[in-house]
Amino acid sequence: MGLGAAMALALGDPPADYASIAAVGLFVALMCVCIVVGHLLEENRWMNESITALFIGLGTGAVILFASSGKHSRVLVFSEDLFFIYLLPPIIFNAGFQVKKKQFFRNFITITLFGAVGTLISFTVISLGALGLISRLNIGALELGDYLALGAIFSATDSVCTLQNFDPGNISSAKLLNFIGSFLYLFGSSTILGVASGLLSAYTIKKLYFGRHSTDREVSIMMLMAYLSYMLAELLDLSGILTVFFCGIVMSHYTWHNVTESSRVTTKHAFATLSFISETFLFLYVGMDALDIEKWKIVGQTYSPVKSIALSSTILALVLVSRAAFVFPLSFVSNLTKKTPNGKISFRQQVIVWWAGLMRGAVSIALAYNKFTRSGHTQQPSNAIMITSTISVVLFSTIVFGLLTKPLIRLLIPSRHLSREPSALSEPSSPKSFFEQLAANSPGHPDLENGISLRRPASLRFLLVSPARSVHHYWRKFDDSFMRPVFGGRGFVPFVPGSPTESSLPLLPGNEN
Amino acid sequence: MGLGAAMALALGDPPADYASIAAVGLFVALMCVCIVVGHLLEENRWMNESITALFIGLGTGAVILFASSGKHSRVLVFSEDLFFIYLLPPIIFNAGFQVKKKQFFRNFITITLFGAVGTLISFTVISLGALGLISRLNIGALELGDYLALGAIFSATDSVCTLQNFDPGNISSAKLLNFIGSFLYLFGSSTILGVASGLLSAYTIKKLYFGRHSTDREVSIMMLMAYLSYMLAELLDLSGILTVFFCGIVMSHYTWHNVTESSRVTTKHAFATLSFISETFLFLYVGMDALDIEKWKIVGQTYSPVKSIALSSTILALVLVSRAAFVFPLSFVSNLTKKTPNGKISFRQQVIVWWAGLMRGAVSIALAYNKFTRSGHTQQPSNAIMITSTISVVLFSTIVFGLLTKPLIRLLIPSRHLSREPSALSEPSSPKSFFEQLAANSPGHPDLENGISLRRPASLRFLLVSPARSVHHYWRKFDDSFMRPVFGGRGFVPFVPGSPTESSLPLLPGNEN
Repeated sequence: MGLGAAMALALGDPPADYASIAAVGLFVALMCVCIVVGHLLEENRWMNESITALFIGLGTGAVILFASSGKHSRVLVFSEDLFFIYLLPPIIFNAGFQVKKKQFFRNFITITLFGAVGTLISFTVISLGALGLISRLNIGALELGDYLALGAIFSATDSVCTLQNFDPGNISSAKLLNFIGSFLYLFGSSTILGVASGLLSAYTIKKLYFGRHSTDREVSIMMLMAYLSYMLAELLDLSGILTVFFCGIVMSHYTWHNVTESSRVTTKHAFATLSFISETFLFLYVGMDALDIEKWKIVGQTYSPVKSIALSSTILALVLVSRAAFVFPLSFVSNLTKKTPNGKISFRQQVIVWWAGLMRGAVSIALAYNKFTRSGHTQQPSNAIMITSTISVVLFSTIVFGLLTKPLIRLLIPSRHLSREPSALSEPSSPKSFFEQLAANSPGHPDLENGISLRRPASLRFLLVSPARSVHHYWRKFDDSFMRPVFGGRGFVPFVPGSPTESSLPLLPGNEN
Repeated sequence: MGLGAAMALALGDPPADYASIAAVGLFVALMCVCIVVGHLLEENRWMNESITALFIGLGTGAVILFASSGKHSRVLVFSEDLFFIYLLPPIIFNAGFQVKKKQFFRNFITITLFGAVGTLISFTVISLGALGLISRLNIGALELGDYLALGAIFSATDSVCTLQNFDPGNISSAKLLNFIGSFLYLFGSSTILGVASGLLSAYTIKKLYFGRHSTDREVSIMMLMAYLSYMLAELLDLSGILTVFFCGIVMSHYTWHNVTESSRVTTKHAFATLSFISETFLFLYVGMDALDIEKWKIVGQTYSPVKSIALSSTILALVLVSRAAFVFPLSFVSNLTKKTPNGKISFRQQVIVWWAGLMRGAVSIALAYNKFTRSGHTQQPSNAIMITSTISVVLFSTIVFGLLTKPLIRLLIPSRHLSREPSALSEPSSPKSFFEQLAANSPGHPDLENGISLRRPASLRFLLVSPARSVHHYWRKFDDSFMRPVFGGRGFVPFVPGSPTESSLPLLPGNEN
């Protein structure tokens, strides 16, 4: 690298960094291609950016595999650090930052129901199902811990991780209570941490008003404090996803209104862009990684193709069932609480909720690697097949379910409903919405736990139409009389008419509080 | 990390990633502190953000050193990858993106003179000086290559790296020509690559008009293509700094005008913010690294403190002399070309130009590590003392020269001159301007090669007032009749009045083309 490499050469030691530059460079180039192709396919009724990136990743993997004459297909070994420290936080934060807060607060109970209880149900169903079915495939020595891991991986929430901490012996009712307790503790404390750091940023910026001197400082401090909340959560063994998600919500509700106009425009788009880039990177990555030959070889040597397929389809079936197992019952429960009929979740909407949450992605893969490999490598067949099946399920669900989502919504939701929501079909499953599906499965991700991503306000709104009096009502009272005077927020900061925010209000975060 | 760590724990293997989370988290937290403190010290007549960050870094280093009972002071070992792949590109790109293009093109010849010739002179003086003086300190076996390295490190340009490629035997005139040739080749090809990638981005965005569907895509593609140009340059062994700097200039001159209004605001501030964050990180890092005990121990065991001080001050003296050796003569030459007296660079301005470029920083340290260590560690005393002296010089020049810059400017430039330029003293040496000083020493960094950073338009303009007819005149003709119709740019794209860009034109890049 410049003088670096030249000097390294002069010193006669191999320029070790060339490899990493080449790898990063390749990814950057591929991401550019993804963006251009995604743009050109914008109007396409089937494709979406996530699938495009996935295919490009697969293609590149194939080329590398061929070029390296069957040795390897990936330029980077899977790194949980890369994933959990750098790629996931911006995605989840942005999901929270752009969430429709009005509907979020209005439907807080339904959302919590779907989030917390739904996750528990899904986890239990998959774990028990795996225990019952996969054990029959005798793919090798699997302990109860592994089945629980499968439950965790495919309900893809980092809350159930607590389960991993108690020994997979006999699950007494005491242990169960213990688990539910720690689950709720995790949920609560993570949320509190996120809210607290969000409020801190709002208060700091309101008091010091960085914008006075520099917009950059405002934007930097927002980015850094959001990131800090995630890091802190991870260090405290809480759910970073939950924390940073709620931090995003609070920041868009308070902090965002305390900054200068240009900071508002900048943060809104910069956060979205960072999230977009991370997502594209992950899809490319997953695509390339899928073809990594090492693990397939090990699996191929030990198991028959039939067995591999059997395992993958079993897992896939469990995903379908486990999601149905909480979407339909919980929708029923939530409908009982609604008085007005238009507050209820129709069966068609329930189907969409169920379907849209079926896709599994990089989170599942990351967790699978974390559980079944040592730093991205494994020699044990029973571990290798877990990785390959995870990858198969992720690819299948992303591509097949992903491709069918647009038509399904078009089929189930008559266009007259959608006419009010032009954006409803415009980007139904961009990488964003797809990744929000991942986050969806963390109980912190309301709109997504509702199965319909933030990018599908139409269907979202169907779910979120609510009775007159609700948590939201009391929340608003509290917010206006206590919170905003302290932490700022809409209406509590000078709001210049004709400002960029003004001109594009319906788009900007925090405008639906 | 969330499920990751929990599973790791469940598996009973040490959560290796805790360390990295803690390290990153610490840095993020410290950066927040730096921003707040920097904001509070904004009006301070001595301090600036770079010095603040440096002190906070030193303080933290001291704490860690104490906590680890004298074992180590840094949480991250110096990594050239981190520096050259992730931190440097955004800083240099932003420097190019925000450059005042009008003055840049107007003074292209002067700038090139200072950039290319100045770097050569500075490099030669330091190398020869080191050869003459440091050899007398007999600090151990140093080859000619090491002296040349010192020249490269402290004229801190990655162009002279080419020098490292020919053997440090007898330097024949043929070899010298060979060197000058490769120097010019490097300069030219890097510039061309940067310009080409900038134009490509402009053309792509103009043709496809991503903004039609999504602002995020526009911003992403700009970021990614800028980054790609840097990566490409490094892979081709060109000067990534030069490439990405020119890419920035071209992007702000063409691409930036082809995107939507919100993209313009976003890119302008997002790029500045990323650069700001990278700089703050680097200063913190340098501060913490300075106290790393390992190398000081080795030096302490072998050399007397006197010798260390002697070496450091020799280098410092060489830096002072070498910069004077090209600033004053070249200013004289450049003055010869100017007809009108107000086009000339006054002696006072020359002093500022000389002074403002004296600060050395993370680039020097990175290069020193690269030349004198293996992956951040060394056992050889003569190498260790090179590192420690580099650090001493960097700290001294940043803090002492840095602190004296504001007063010096105030002293030499009567306030009546500055009254027209309120911004002139507002942020005279923010980390930005400081780092631009680093970039300054690469022949790609005009305003800075002029010694006055982008953040000091006042002094800058003194230098850049130019005669009526100039390269700029012909450039404009060419630009308007050939370039802009193809690549877009100001006046060749729909420009909505009252747009955010409109409202803040004097601030936005590309408005002085």
